Amino acid sequence: MRTHVAGQHQTFSSEGISAFSNPLDRWALRQIRSAVGAAPIRLLLWDGFQSAPGDDSSVGSIVFRNRKALFSCVRDPELNFGETYMFGAVEVRGDLVAVLEALYLALHGSKPRPWSRLWQQSNGVGQAKEHVHHHYDLGNDFYRLWLDREMVYTCAYFPTPDASLEDAQIAKMERICRKLRLQPGERVAEAGCGWGSLALHMAKQHGVTVTAFNLSSEQIDYARHRAQQEGVADRVEFVNDDYRNLRGTYDVFVSVGMLEHVGLADFHTFGRVIDRTLHSDGRGLLHFIGRDRPTPLNPWIRKRIFPGAYPPTLREVAEGVLEPQNLSVVDVENLRAHYAKTLEHWRQRFTAAAPDVTRMSNATFARAWDLYLAGSQAAFTTGWMQLFQIVFVRGESRRVTWARV
Amino acid sequence: MRTHVAGQHQTFSSEGISAFSNPLDRWALRQIRSAVGAAPIRLLLWDGFQSAPGDDSSVGSIVFRNRKALFSCVRDPELNFGETYMFGAVEVRGDLVAVLEALYLALHGSKPRPWSRLWQQSNGVGQAKEHVHHHYDLGNDFYRLWLDREMVYTCAYFPTPDASLEDAQIAKMERICRKLRLQPGERVAEAGCGWGSLALHMAKQHGVTVTAFNLSSEQIDYARHRAQQEGVADRVEFVNDDYRNLRGTYDVFVSVGMLEHVGLADFHTFGRVIDRTLHSDGRGLLHFIGRDRPTPLNPWIRKRIFPGAYPPTLREVAEGVLEPQNLSVVDVENLRAHYAKTLEHWRQRFTAAAPDVTRMSNATFARAWDLYLAGSQAAFTTGWMQLFQIVFVRGESRRVTWARV
Repeated sequence: MRTHVAGQHQTFSSEGISAFSNPLDRWALRQIRSAVGAAPIRLLLWDGFQSAPGDDSSVGSIVFRNRKALFSCVRDPELNFGETYMFGAVEVRGDLVAVLEALYLALHGSKPRPWSRLWQQSNGVGQAKEHVHHHYDLGNDFYRLWLDREMVYTCAYFPTPDASLEDAQIAKMERICRKLRLQPGERVAEAGCGWGSLALHMAKQHGVTVTAFNLSSEQIDYARHRAQQEGVADRVEFVNDDYRNLRGTYDVFVSVGMLEHVGLADFHTFGRVIDRTLHSDGRGLLHFIGRDRPTPLNPWIRKRIFPGAYPPTLREVAEGVLEPQNLSVVDVENLRAHYAKTLEHWRQRFTAAAPDVTRMSNATFARAWDLYLAGSQAAFTTGWMQLFQIVFVRGESRRVTWARV
Repeated sequence: MRTHVAGQHQTFSSEGISAFSNPLDRWALRQIRSAVGAAPIRLLLWDGFQSAPGDDSSVGSIVFRNRKALFSCVRDPELNFGETYMFGAVEVRGDLVAVLEALYLALHGSKPRPWSRLWQQSNGVGQAKEHVHHHYDLGNDFYRLWLDREMVYTCAYFPTPDASLEDAQIAKMERICRKLRLQPGERVAEAGCGWGSLALHMAKQHGVTVTAFNLSSEQIDYARHRAQQEGVADRVEFVNDDYRNLRGTYDVFVSVGMLEHVGLADFHTFGRVIDRTLHSDGRGLLHFIGRDRPTPLNPWIRKRIFPGAYPPTLREVAEGVLEPQNLSVVDVENLRAHYAKTLEHWRQRFTAAAPDVTRMSNATFARAWDLYLAGSQAAFTTGWMQLFQIVFVRGESRRVTWARV
């Protein structure tokens, strides 16, 4: 298993730290306090010096364990909070999700960044393959530790908040099928199929044939094995290739959890693939992590977890993917509450499996992934991130939908 | 009752028409055939000369009754088809809706118009008042002839396709209330309240207080009278003023059938009104006629029916209204099938009341409105126009919605 952090453990080591904080250290701590405003979080230095929130009601504490960690967070908090946390130079006391929620809420008033487009670069086929390899080829054994039985690594749908994760993932897949009104014998194209659970569900439960694309060879191998075992290999083709190489025409186009990896620069290409794929009465569904306004993905997440990713706004998807192809939006559902709950389940399982994760990789990797899961949960509970499901048809489609799912 | 067409009856008179069509007339007819492509419509001249569709299967015929009508339609079909139709110089044989649907479908492949923004101009308060007066002050007696009992002049929601219009309008209002999760005692601001039916429904059925704005004095008078009669005048305030003068903070912002009259140039203003109106955990709903891609409203509709109107795309609403205020889209539903059905009901009633309409105004006015209703129905069945309902909350709202309506 690749862990991407080997050899970097000394980055925030404790060498050269004086035992007591000095006035400059305390000035630095006040800078951080000023940035997080009224967030109910205590900020502590390595010697116990602290900055409490105004009303002294805190949900937890952030402890800077050395000077290097402190100043790196003043300089570039978006990148270095994660860096210092994963290497143990920053510690969080109290509930990690609650602390991160307080940070997100404090930052909510901050201005949109009109320059976010400058950070966008095209994910060419080679680059896309490398990005996918970075995240999705960490090893099926790793993901099996904390995903559901079906290995679904996207937002679930909870019919009730206390549904199990297993049931919620099946409910999500079934909900997508119902939104798409699948009919037996129809042909479905899937862009970004993960471990193949949705493609298999569609074929088994709705009698369709599916052609499913994925750049991750580990995931494709797993999916093909399942298709064989479950007797639907003649109706589900798993293709280890870039979605841009999709050919032929289909009744349905579906993409769950891939658009956030496409990148704005390739939205027109993505739209053109849909346009040439979908026949005249076809329909499609896009499921993706999104934003209310254009915001670059946190640079630490880009560096350590999802290189090349960008969660778009509805406007950006309409502008880049749908409008140019004259595709008509039938339905949009924002499932952010469901993604927060999904992440809560994943993190519970991840925490329970922490000894195995650490054994398979190392403590730094385990801390990085715990921060990523907790931070994502907080981002969805606070509205920092959204989960959009868009159903669309061709503009001139006669497909009438009286009542939605 | 104002009818806006007095004194223009001679525009497409028959004077100076030769009994038989000449080669130039036939060339003109071929120009029109070429523009409508393979539409299954016969095109006829006044002397019986005709151009049939390729496969000879037609849903109806368009008859040009004189040379002036013919050439005006070659020169500017978008404006003059309506003009010549309303003055009786163009006749449609067969089902009017079917003929208009065939036209819309034939034009569907046409290119988007990137210059549509140039047609946009700000609807200042004075201008907006004039536009509203043009359409909505035609007289309550006129609208009573063909609207439902509640006088709802926006898209209904049909729980089943054979529901009555009366039931479907009540279902629409109730659906909006449920999407907004109204709680007794909450305060609602409504921008563009028509004859007050939604405001009254909210107050009576959900125990909220409503402040409802409308520029049409005839509608406001009617709504106030209803509030008095139904004993909710203490909880529903009808204000005869521009929505831009809305003050105070509210739990809910709702606007049904007004955004298409606001115009792109004022979308930022509209967004700012929402932002200053909505308290921190507030939510809102926008219900409006929209498009899949930017397209100017048909110039005849702008001239004769809805001056100043522009149905926006979802992207334009996100860009102009929602993103700048950091409002978060929770839900979008496209109800175009429901609007087609609503218009079918309205036109049936309108047709039944045609003698009354003609008596109240004149035959030209009645033909213009019949064309407008039939054309709108065809626009919704063919996907030329959309009806979007958007539910939104503030970005940082903690309002969790597990299951949508």
